[in-house]
Amino acid sequence: MKVKIFIKLKESVLDPQGKAVMGSMRTLGFDNVRSVRVGKMIELEVEDSPRDEIVKSIGEMCGKLLVNTVIEQYRFEIDDTVLSR
Amino acid sequence: MKVKIFIKLKESVLDPQGKAVMGSMRTLGFDNVRSVRVGKMIELEVEDSPRDEIVKSIGEMCGKLLVNTVIEQYRFEIDDTVLSR
Repeated sequence: MKVKIFIKLKESVLDPQGKAVMGSMRTLGFDNVRSVRVGKMIELEVEDSPRDEIVKSIGEMCGKLLVNTVIEQYRFEIDDTVLSR
Repeated sequence: MKVKIFIKLKESVLDPQGKAVMGSMRTLGFDNVRSVRVGKMIELEVEDSPRDEIVKSIGEMCGKLLVNTVIEQYRFEIDDTVLSR
């Protein structure tokens, strides 16, 4: 099964990387951009198993390894079904 | 309008960051993961304008700044409508 995890900084957290990208966009003449936030997308190929087990497993992976839950939030999709958190 | 750009390495390109994440997953006991690929997600807030102009503008941003088209591929969504490339 394919799992996509999307990780981004919480709205309240400043994003210097996004600010830098926006600066470069302005330099290149893209004046229609109001804000830029940069996040991560992690694609996993996971062995087939019941959906609730996968959901639990992904939650653990995010909490223990992939996401800094102090400053980041995440959501994930399993086989293109959106599962928000 | 909200635009989300998803950038990832082409399938044929090795992903050392993904390999490292998979190694850590194995160490933590997540043995059900077969592969990991790490990509980027860039969220833009763009001034409202006709959709085809935005599509053109995003294409230019990706080609000139955000994406290394030699090794990376991208797709994007405008207000949650998927537009593949």
